[in-house]
Amino acid sequence: MLDRISSFFEQECKDSALEPILVGVSGGPDSLCLLHLLFRSKRSLIIAHFDHQLRPTSLQEAEGLRELASRMGVNFVTGSQNVRSFASEHGFSLEEAARKLRYDFLFTQARQLGAPVIAVAHHADDQVETILMHFLRGAGLNGLKGMTAVTKLPEFDPDIRLIRPLLETWRWEIEAYCNEFNLEPMQDESNLDQTYFRNRLRHTLIPDLETYNPGFKMTLLRSSRSLAGDQELVNIAVDAAWGKCRVVLSDNFASMDMGALINTSPAILRNIFRRVAIHVRPGIRDVNFEAVERLVQFVKEVKGVSSRINFTDGLFGFSEAGKLYITDDLDHLPLPEWPQVEIESIIKIGKTVLLEGSGWVLKAEEIDIPDLAEIHRNTDPFQVWMDADLVYGKLLIRNRKNGDRFRPLGMQTGKIKVSDLFINEKIPNRARKNFPLVCLDAEILWIPGLRSSHRFRITESTRKCLHLKLSKL
Amino acid sequence: MLDRISSFFEQECKDSALEPILVGVSGGPDSLCLLHLLFRSKRSLIIAHFDHQLRPTSLQEAEGLRELASRMGVNFVTGSQNVRSFASEHGFSLEEAARKLRYDFLFTQARQLGAPVIAVAHHADDQVETILMHFLRGAGLNGLKGMTAVTKLPEFDPDIRLIRPLLETWRWEIEAYCNEFNLEPMQDESNLDQTYFRNRLRHTLIPDLETYNPGFKMTLLRSSRSLAGDQELVNIAVDAAWGKCRVVLSDNFASMDMGALINTSPAILRNIFRRVAIHVRPGIRDVNFEAVERLVQFVKEVKGVSSRINFTDGLFGFSEAGKLYITDDLDHLPLPEWPQVEIESIIKIGKTVLLEGSGWVLKAEEIDIPDLAEIHRNTDPFQVWMDADLVYGKLLIRNRKNGDRFRPLGMQTGKIKVSDLFINEKIPNRARKNFPLVCLDAEILWIPGLRSSHRFRITESTRKCLHLKLSKL
Repeated sequence: MLDRISSFFEQECKDSALEPILVGVSGGPDSLCLLHLLFRSKRSLIIAHFDHQLRPTSLQEAEGLRELASRMGVNFVTGSQNVRSFASEHGFSLEEAARKLRYDFLFTQARQLGAPVIAVAHHADDQVETILMHFLRGAGLNGLKGMTAVTKLPEFDPDIRLIRPLLETWRWEIEAYCNEFNLEPMQDESNLDQTYFRNRLRHTLIPDLETYNPGFKMTLLRSSRSLAGDQELVNIAVDAAWGKCRVVLSDNFASMDMGALINTSPAILRNIFRRVAIHVRPGIRDVNFEAVERLVQFVKEVKGVSSRINFTDGLFGFSEAGKLYITDDLDHLPLPEWPQVEIESIIKIGKTVLLEGSGWVLKAEEIDIPDLAEIHRNTDPFQVWMDADLVYGKLLIRNRKNGDRFRPLGMQTGKIKVSDLFINEKIPNRARKNFPLVCLDAEILWIPGLRSSHRFRITESTRKCLHLKLSKL
Repeated sequence: MLDRISSFFEQECKDSALEPILVGVSGGPDSLCLLHLLFRSKRSLIIAHFDHQLRPTSLQEAEGLRELASRMGVNFVTGSQNVRSFASEHGFSLEEAARKLRYDFLFTQARQLGAPVIAVAHHADDQVETILMHFLRGAGLNGLKGMTAVTKLPEFDPDIRLIRPLLETWRWEIEAYCNEFNLEPMQDESNLDQTYFRNRLRHTLIPDLETYNPGFKMTLLRSSRSLAGDQELVNIAVDAAWGKCRVVLSDNFASMDMGALINTSPAILRNIFRRVAIHVRPGIRDVNFEAVERLVQFVKEVKGVSSRINFTDGLFGFSEAGKLYITDDLDHLPLPEWPQVEIESIIKIGKTVLLEGSGWVLKAEEIDIPDLAEIHRNTDPFQVWMDADLVYGKLLIRNRKNGDRFRPLGMQTGKIKVSDLFINEKIPNRARKNFPLVCLDAEILWIPGLRSSHRFRITESTRKCLHLKLSKL
């Protein structure tokens, strides 16, 4: 088994700095065996123990490991948290909560102590159970390939690697090793994540499946290697599409180019959406097939200004202005296309007004009368020229109010509702409430980006000109 | 269900000529339901029935279907073969033999009758059983994705498409449909391939797995769609590598460029080797993981002139002269690099001799004495210049005999064994026996491609020159 560890490091980790290794040790047979093997292979180690506070004896176990570490002359760090109460506070299952807190601890310690690698003791039986669980619950390639021998968990750290040197070693081999070297497990660590479901798999279903194929466990382990290779090929294809679809990941949302998505195969889309979900909701481990399929269908059929569809785990897909967003709250999304104003502000000629919080500014100037041809050539909908002599009174910029109406340039009689204009101009719903209107007292002078008022237009008789321009900071 | 059939044709088969459809009908509920649906959707059909001769009543069943077809006004074709004796003759399982003979029949009929499409009645329960069987026995992505709704079976026909319109319809829906329309199955077609293994899956294992996840069957069906998409992505990657590795498929072997294989990722190699195996041994449906892995390892480690490794189903991998071959017999492989001669032939000056069966010819001419510098500049090892005055006697070309020796150009005394020369020059084993030697009576004059005899070399005193040249036809 020592040889196997050496060849693991040779084959899987050939090209990078690997020490010190932070070893996650629970005190059970698997992690004691791993620790012993790594110690014998003369690597620089740090023992890290996380106390889940799930058993009354857990404190003694931590103390026992501290003594063991000191006898070995190896650094020892420990952390402790009440997994049960964390789980009930956050609505996690016990297994999920334990995983999250344990990895939080391990990665934080590794960062602080400068360990580029964390070793954990998952073994071949764990792998078989994990794959079988994914198979039963429904999983894509990523779930069916099982755990990876060397991986990263970006939700905990972007750089530190997680390695599983025992992933091809069976439980019985570990037990035999512990016997041979008189390692005395402090607890049966398998109890930790032996939920009822996993327990049934281990003790009932797997032995049952072995009556269909006596080599079932080995078969599954081999399939997983083959599938992991195929997953790499899929990843390469997805990486290529990722750029084309201009996927941008932020903390609370992701955005993608809708036009490119429409021309992308469903197989690629599924993978992109899975990756995005895992980024926006770290901790999701495999994304429900229907959820992904719903989003794929949404992309193929989306119509109108903006629309949304449920995705998974509180996330939804939201289509707007040629973009697909995935988020759990529209407030997280940028409004790159449209200015917004929350607080009414007075506009002073010759000054610049900042529209609070939206990153846009408004500049108002009196200028000489420009060539009319120049005004007609204008392609920037966020600037306007008006007859300055008509503008007397309080000039201000404010957001929309119910019942706002005005007469746009070119309309000879009557008025239109601002709300109707928004609909006709396909202004997204979420941009309407705080869309800025420039007003003279109660009269709407200009809706930046859309229309100006007919009454204030430049005519042959205009003698002074007011130039208004909105721009992004 | 009629709507489902319509949307199947809309979505899966949108862009091609589809009629007439040859429908495989056994007379069981699945195929009767399929036939009825296709008939109601007003497509042009041909009913094709294959009698496996597995039951004493099979003749009556065929007659029953003939009457049904005539009542429907649909063309009817039938075939019959003793599956059981075919299976025992060829060492197939009953299920394999039935599949092979049935598809042989269906594709042959479709070709003869100009049907571009064959429809078969596999349904969602069949799909679940197939995937589960692959999962238990060990399968890559290709096995786990299950059957495909629209596919081709190149081992039977390169162009005709096989469609499975009921692949997302459950057995209970088919039974309900048969009841609704009073379709009377002539037999329970599921008996046909109900081997013991499949039977246990259907009646024991699947209900058991549903206690772990009540929606297990639906889950698996969905996973299969997702995996099928990923398989397409993998196929695209493999297609690209296929060209780079210069994979050439012949009837009895495949050849690949070893240098390119060495620089190809194991995940791609696995897929290439699987595809090659399926081509060289049509009828293999999924290739054993170890077999593939052995070949991948072989590519990474291969050394020496030529070596071989067992692959699968009697096939082996064979590395030689920068190529990897996959075949079941070295005699199938070309010897593109080396001339071969099976029958001794007399060489006449001024004439050309064809080396029987090898595609090479030898031309012998007397020429003026060339510039010695020209001879030294020669880079073609298959031509030689000799002193013609020394060449009197019987000039012939023959293959190697045990004990052949000669003194190569530049060697002053003694002789070397031709067999040692072959080894030093890395002539592959299989090319040695029939390697051509040009002799004057019993004396070796020239070994084309390798060395000429010291005694016949051109010297200052040469007055007449014999020019020998071997070339490919």
